[in-house]
Amino acid sequence: YNIVLLPGDGVGPEVTAAAKAVLGVIADFYGHRFEFSEHLIGGAGIDATGDPLPPETTAACLAADGVLLGAVGGPKWDGQKRRPEEGLLGIRKAMGLFANLRPLQVSPVLAHRSPLKKEIVEGVDLIVFRELTGGVYFGEKTRTDSMASDLCIYSVEEIERVTRAAFKTALQRRGKVTSVDKANVMETSRLWREVVTRIHAEEFPQVQLEHALVDSMAMHLIRKPREYDVILTENMFGDILSDEISVLGGSIGLLPSASLGEAGPGLFEPIHGSAPDIAGQDLANPVGTILSAAMMLRHSLELEDEATSIEAAVAAVLAAGATTADLGGELGTRAAAEAIIDAIK
Amino acid sequence: YNIVLLPGDGVGPEVTAAAKAVLGVIADFYGHRFEFSEHLIGGAGIDATGDPLPPETTAACLAADGVLLGAVGGPKWDGQKRRPEEGLLGIRKAMGLFANLRPLQVSPVLAHRSPLKKEIVEGVDLIVFRELTGGVYFGEKTRTDSMASDLCIYSVEEIERVTRAAFKTALQRRGKVTSVDKANVMETSRLWREVVTRIHAEEFPQVQLEHALVDSMAMHLIRKPREYDVILTENMFGDILSDEISVLGGSIGLLPSASLGEAGPGLFEPIHGSAPDIAGQDLANPVGTILSAAMMLRHSLELEDEATSIEAAVAAVLAAGATTADLGGELGTRAAAEAIIDAIK
Ligand SMILES: CC(C)[C@H](C(=O)O)[C@@H](O)C(=O)O
Ligand SMILES: CC(C)[C@H](C(=O)O)[C@@H](O)C(=O)O
Repeated sequence: YNIVLLPGDGVGPEVTAAAKAVLGVIADFYGHRFEFSEHLIGGAGIDATGDPLPPETTAACLAADGVLLGAVGGPKWDGQKRRPEEGLLGIRKAMGLFANLRPLQVSPVLAHRSPLKKEIVEGVDLIVFRELTGGVYFGEKTRTDSMASDLCIYSVEEIERVTRAAFKTALQRRGKVTSVDKANVMETSRLWREVVTRIHAEEFPQVQLEHALVDSMAMHLIRKPREYDVILTENMFGDILSDEISVLGGSIGLLPSASLGEAGPGLFEPIHGSAPDIAGQDLANPVGTILSAAMMLRHSLELEDEATSIEAAVAAVLAAGATTADLGGELGTRAAAEAIIDAIK
Repeated sequence: YNIVLLPGDGVGPEVTAAAKAVLGVIADFYGHRFEFSEHLIGGAGIDATGDPLPPETTAACLAADGVLLGAVGGPKWDGQKRRPEEGLLGIRKAMGLFANLRPLQVSPVLAHRSPLKKEIVEGVDLIVFRELTGGVYFGEKTRTDSMASDLCIYSVEEIERVTRAAFKTALQRRGKVTSVDKANVMETSRLWREVVTRIHAEEFPQVQLEHALVDSMAMHLIRKPREYDVILTENMFGDILSDEISVLGGSIGLLPSASLGEAGPGLFEPIHGSAPDIAGQDLANPVGTILSAAMMLRHSLELEDEATSIEAAVAAVLAAGATTADLGGELGTRAAAEAIIDAIK
């Protein structure tokens, strides 16, 4: 298997190295051969080549079986002509990754570290399906001295494909989809609601569908997060809502994500960003990236047992309280990864 | 004083009537004369005239000293050609209301009803300044069979005026402004950040300014809400973030808002919506509307003592546990208003 690593910026290199070590142990244990190659993206790409997404990075990703990314961005590149984020948005687009999956489970052993009351977050088990190639992220932008604009644009086809992916996943879970929009204000949201309603009626009538407005959803996710199963939404709303709930389980450092297309390799990355304030200090929590690697094994390499064994090891280590500082523990990035490796063995 | 009431839809008429009763007592007590006139807006406007914002409503609002609104919208008008929300957006635009102020204080007596842990929410005291006439709410919309779009657009001037309003308020508070944008993706956000940075440097250097991305802000508002003083942001982000934090104090039913322009009357409304599920049952919490009426007395009628006496009465009643069902109490809408009236007397 051909795995591309995109360490990127900030804590990206540290957490990617930790996940690579875990994958190495999995390869030995299950008798696989993982070929790793590292490529530039984001600020690291700008520094080395002037380009946040060098063409050879794109080529390597397209040829890979799976791509594991650390993080991009940081104040270092503020005000420069090219932005690190262009690399991330560019590779999502180039790989045709339209569905960003962000699962959130609140572990009973960590529920007490949530800012929310234990009785509200305990048992939360949901997954956000965020559309990833449309919306205000990719529409035309304009700028003059006196104004600026961003176009939010969606095609029926873009909405259909992520909707189908969300409904399919709901069938394997508790069978409920909550679609989030701002249909009382936005035309794209009205189209969104129509398409989701139609795909539901025509193809997935057995799934329970509800619609919610993004503003009230931002509230409900704090009041009653346990009620949600699959949350389906457009690019920007997905960005905001998934970050909002990322703290429910105690630390954003725990959370993985998968970005998938129609075919071809997926891109896997932790939800946390580049965290420049703690970069290079062996402080970052590697769990989000290690769980992203597990998602890569499952979704792109179809190695279900291997994925499960990583997830079980992470759960065991967290239950034992062997954590990094964000969860009140004393381990560094490397030591936390070592603990997970020991648990796998 | 000439006060326009816009009861609107759902629970709007009930909560507006409650606030009107409180205002009547204030008038008697302080020897003012409040002339009330009621006008149609939203679904009520559509039902009676086919128009969510009949011209005579606009005329009455422009001629008023202050406007108090209940709520607009509800499933009854789903799929109809005119939407109730057009009335609200239209009157905001017609009155030139560019700054929507949403204060949030978490009362120690109600902190235990928050979904967040007491130690995180107790003492929260912040105010959101949401820009109200620009962004994706008012940009051009397009629609074909295969796609839809919404234009998010901001002028320098639109950003400047709400920014000045926020900085001025910060000077009277703890002197800190957090400006929220998505400058790593949106051109309007980059303009937003530039303008806010410039106004800060040129006119309010004594205020502490920080910038935050909307996604991480959605997270920080749950993790450490006490750190914020004045939050300044554009229309859509303000909609989402202010609803998100509306539950921090125990119930969205408590929260008022004021929408202000350069001159002329302001519009005052509770943050909660039309709540069609409990409409007409004497269940809605009138406090958000009553505190909105207090904001009207302060900002539009310049009756500071009168405003303070309503706020003190509300605080006393909440401290005594005389609340509606959303806060675990047993009072109906009318009885809750009566309790506040008794406290004023
Ligand atoms: C870095 C940024 C462009 C990105 C986004 O908004 O998509 C990030 O916030 C994310 O959620 O992956
Ligand atoms: C009803 C709707 C158009 C409105 C908005 O989004 O502005 C409401 O959510 C609000 O926050 O006042």
